[in-house]
Amino acid sequence: MAEEIKRSRLRQKLYIIIFHANTPLGKAFDIALIAGILISVLTVMLDSVKALHEQYGNWFMVAEWTFTILFTIEYLVRIYCIERPIRYIFSFYGIVDLISILPSYLSLLIPGSQYWLVVRILRVLRVFRILRLARYVSQANLLMHAIRQSRQKITVFFFSVMVLVTIFGCIMYMIESPQSGYTSIPRSIYWAIVTLTTVGYGDISPQSDLGQAIAAMVMLMGYAIIAVPTGIFTAELSNVLRGDIKQVDCPQCKKALHDKEAVYCSQCGEELVTASS
Amino acid sequence: MAEEIKRSRLRQKLYIIIFHANTPLGKAFDIALIAGILISVLTVMLDSVKALHEQYGNWFMVAEWTFTILFTIEYLVRIYCIERPIRYIFSFYGIVDLISILPSYLSLLIPGSQYWLVVRILRVLRVFRILRLARYVSQANLLMHAIRQSRQKITVFFFSVMVLVTIFGCIMYMIESPQSGYTSIPRSIYWAIVTLTTVGYGDISPQSDLGQAIAAMVMLMGYAIIAVPTGIFTAELSNVLRGDIKQVDCPQCKKALHDKEAVYCSQCGEELVTASS
Amino acid sequence: MAEEIKRSRLRQKLYIIIFHANTPLGKAFDIALIAGILISVLTVMLDSVKALHEQYGNWFMVAEWTFTILFTIEYLVRIYCIERPIRYIFSFYGIVDLISILPSYLSLLIPGSQYWLVVRILRVLRVFRILRLARYVSQANLLMHAIRQSRQKITVFFFSVMVLVTIFGCIMYMIESPQSGYTSIPRSIYWAIVTLTTVGYGDISPQSDLGQAIAAMVMLMGYAIIAVPTGIFTAELSNVLRGDIKQVDCPQCKKALHDKEAVYCSQCGEELVTASS
Amino acid sequence: MAEEIKRSRLRQKLYIIIFHANTPLGKAFDIALIAGILISVLTVMLDSVKALHEQYGNWFMVAEWTFTILFTIEYLVRIYCIERPIRYIFSFYGIVDLISILPSYLSLLIPGSQYWLVVRILRVLRVFRILRLARYVSQANLLMHAIRQSRQKITVFFFSVMVLVTIFGCIMYMIESPQSGYTSIPRSIYWAIVTLTTVGYGDISPQSDLGQAIAAMVMLMGYAIIAVPTGIFTAELSNVLRGDIKQVDCPQCKKALHDKEAVYCSQCGEELVTASS
Repeated sequence: MAEEIKRSRLRQKLYIIIFHANTPLGKAFDIALIAGILISVLTVMLDSVKALHEQYGNWFMVAEWTFTILFTIEYLVRIYCIERPIRYIFSFYGIVDLISILPSYLSLLIPGSQYWLVVRILRVLRVFRILRLARYVSQANLLMHAIRQSRQKITVFFFSVMVLVTIFGCIMYMIESPQSGYTSIPRSIYWAIVTLTTVGYGDISPQSDLGQAIAAMVMLMGYAIIAVPTGIFTAELSNVLRGDIKQVDCPQCKKALHDKEAVYCSQCGEELVTASS
Repeated sequence: MAEEIKRSRLRQKLYIIIFHANTPLGKAFDIALIAGILISVLTVMLDSVKALHEQYGNWFMVAEWTFTILFTIEYLVRIYCIERPIRYIFSFYGIVDLISILPSYLSLLIPGSQYWLVVRILRVLRVFRILRLARYVSQANLLMHAIRQSRQKITVFFFSVMVLVTIFGCIMYMIESPQSGYTSIPRSIYWAIVTLTTVGYGDISPQSDLGQAIAAMVMLMGYAIIAVPTGIFTAELSNVLRGDIKQVDCPQCKKALHDKEAVYCSQCGEELVTASS
Repeated sequence: MAEEIKRSRLRQKLYIIIFHANTPLGKAFDIALIAGILISVLTVMLDSVKALHEQYGNWFMVAEWTFTILFTIEYLVRIYCIERPIRYIFSFYGIVDLISILPSYLSLLIPGSQYWLVVRILRVLRVFRILRLARYVSQANLLMHAIRQSRQKITVFFFSVMVLVTIFGCIMYMIESPQSGYTSIPRSIYWAIVTLTTVGYGDISPQSDLGQAIAAMVMLMGYAIIAVPTGIFTAELSNVLRGDIKQVDCPQCKKALHDKEAVYCSQCGEELVTASS
Repeated sequence: MAEEIKRSRLRQKLYIIIFHANTPLGKAFDIALIAGILISVLTVMLDSVKALHEQYGNWFMVAEWTFTILFTIEYLVRIYCIERPIRYIFSFYGIVDLISILPSYLSLLIPGSQYWLVVRILRVLRVFRILRLARYVSQANLLMHAIRQSRQKITVFFFSVMVLVTIFGCIMYMIESPQSGYTSIPRSIYWAIVTLTTVGYGDISPQSDLGQAIAAMVMLMGYAIIAVPTGIFTAELSNVLRGDIKQVDCPQCKKALHDKEAVYCSQCGEELVTASS
């Protein structure tokens, strides 16, 4: 039984190291993890450069397997020390964690070079794991809150942009000849998006006078319309920063941002305890 | 006479299904309509891709006629169940509804392949019909309100941009040789719009030193000037969001947004009834 | 002497028609003037298109001379009816008015086709005359006020951008080979402006790996830095719209915008009379 | 001893001229310095244009040496008259000042033409010296304050952009063929940055249908995401402008911006003396 307590203690210790960032060991673990992720992603990237692959390919492979084994250990420890492992495994980050290590093992089973490429690149999804750490940064919470607040308005905006882009894509498809690149409506809509968002590759561009006049209209629209998402987000963020929001971790569900007057967490109903009050 | 009452009941039922979104049947109708519009527009789009047209052309035609007949029935039912059909027929959405079905019938009368293309693409205007549903979304109302408020200022802004673009277009026409693409003043103005809006296709770009210096000026201007529409819209939206506006449907004309202190609808004079007060 | 009084009356009537927009005749004059300017500028533009010049060249010339004579009459009437003609002649709009008519007369004196082109295009400066009418639009006053308020900050911003662009231009000149288009520092700075302002022609673009890495940095900077002018203008416009400004024409100098608590005009010291108070 | 006092007086006089801008002599010195820096930087720039170098190369060299000697004298005087010379020498501007003059002397020691180029261009770093004068401009202080306030949020934003760009770069690397320019993951990430920031060179652009669809997604994201830095900076600047900040130079450390209610400098603890109170 002492054995069991000891093990449960170990589990809790590991849990605090891995899932909390406010202890020295937890911080060290987070930094090591970020470094590991970044180096491993960099390895995958550089391996895709032909010249480097030919010269350092073997080294990249060694690095890759080292990281894969380390991340596998980390993944197993996470499952071991968390209270509800099933919930973790099927959460977004649980799946990302699995995808981060699976490709290397799969590459042993599927030897075809074609699949090999896709599988290898899947490992880049590891960068997503870094986002997990962002939730410790209070500024990220504020930004996410403002983005969530403006989500509905941004959706309406995107919808209108899609309608606009479809109409203008079709108009250009009728006006411009296929020789200028407007070979089908989907491609013309692609052009409309390239133009409205002011990206402007120039791979497809209008040649006729009427086409250029309409393109000019689309550009001016895009130039003015960009005001809409900017305005939406700025207005919401101003509200958030003006202090309608207080930052206090819910003791149960860890939700970080609450309405200023909130006494109970709006997500789980737990009473909020603010240090200052 | 019982017959007549029955018919009038049917009309009202249909009216509620088609024109209101807050009953289960009305919601189902709206969703079916959106799905129908999107699939039918997608059909027109994919049909414009040569490879797909050759392979699935017949299927696209069948789909097209199915949707045309469904939309025709819907159009007739709308006319049947609305109180003032003439007003609907000549309203913006009435015309869009008609244009959405007319092209297919016209294509039977005009067999020439040239016109056929234009006529077919007109059917894409159906996407406009989706916007009709946007008015149910309260967020869209807020956005439209802010856009309407800033309309005058945006017009002044566009006017100034047009003057600027004309002047810079002419300057570049004088400075740059026609070989660089500045063959006429309208085309040079087109270049100025492409540059000021930061689209930058690169199909026309200055080659001389002086031309590049002036182009750099236009770019920096465009980079700074974009602040103006953004600033206008953000300031107006902030005002709207700050709560100078209340959202309550006028019982008569359905106007959704009113001044905070408004007691009567500013559009039709009807008294406003707010649920909360 | 009756003659003299009559003439003075005529002068005043003409003055009100030409310089004020709030009488029916004054409004009609303004609309006719805008139409005249737009058509005459359009004539100059279309005349620059080779195909149109060859076909309709004579008609364009007739139109041009008609407008030149009309604008000459207007110019002389302006000088005649204004109180201080010298001040008008040397004001910005007085010079623009003169430049609008001079080129046509000059073209009679200088027959060389080379100069002819430049001289002809100078007539496009007429579009500036439209801006004069903008001052009647109260919204334009608000915008100009906000722009004037943020002028100093925008200058500081442009200064920093120029320093940034110079540094990055030089770095790219060192890194990239002249074959990629980076033939001199001024041209490399031109590239840096094209990239930082997110225009992105693509006529000069980095080919080496290091060059692309630095270009990516410049792009991300440009993407973030655009927040600065936008933020400046939005903040200033918000202040203006929030009502720190009242709109009342000074009876002496016609300055339209004053501080909310202003009792005397800050420009000429005249007492302000507000209709409402 | 009189000699010593005299010398100390000279030192103080020079110190005021060089480091303060609010005396007539100090202002004159600043203007002369800006003019000198701008002309000397312009010389380096123009010298990089081949045609100009061949024609005026000798003149540029004379100008360069004149400025180098003047800046050397200025550098030595600065060291002479400042209280703590070591601190100045190793400060950011001290190093910039040294780099501004060193290259010319180094070019005498290292005669190789290859290094010569790099060394010559280092002199452009002189433009940084202009920024030193910006701190006298109160508007620059306000802007810097707002930027510093939003620093953390902008960092979070950039981090998310980097993750996004990595993912999309990898997706495009898998989808598009190397013939379209997507030869390696780093290059594909470069494309993703070019597209997301709406620069859009067009040197690498997707050719396949799927690639264009994903590119359209990246563009629309970039179009909406630009709202984030803009919103952050606007919200912070609004706070600063709304008057939460007072501008008063700390008598000890010269920090210019303080919280409105601040009585002591937050940087050095010195009591703040406001002229108005």
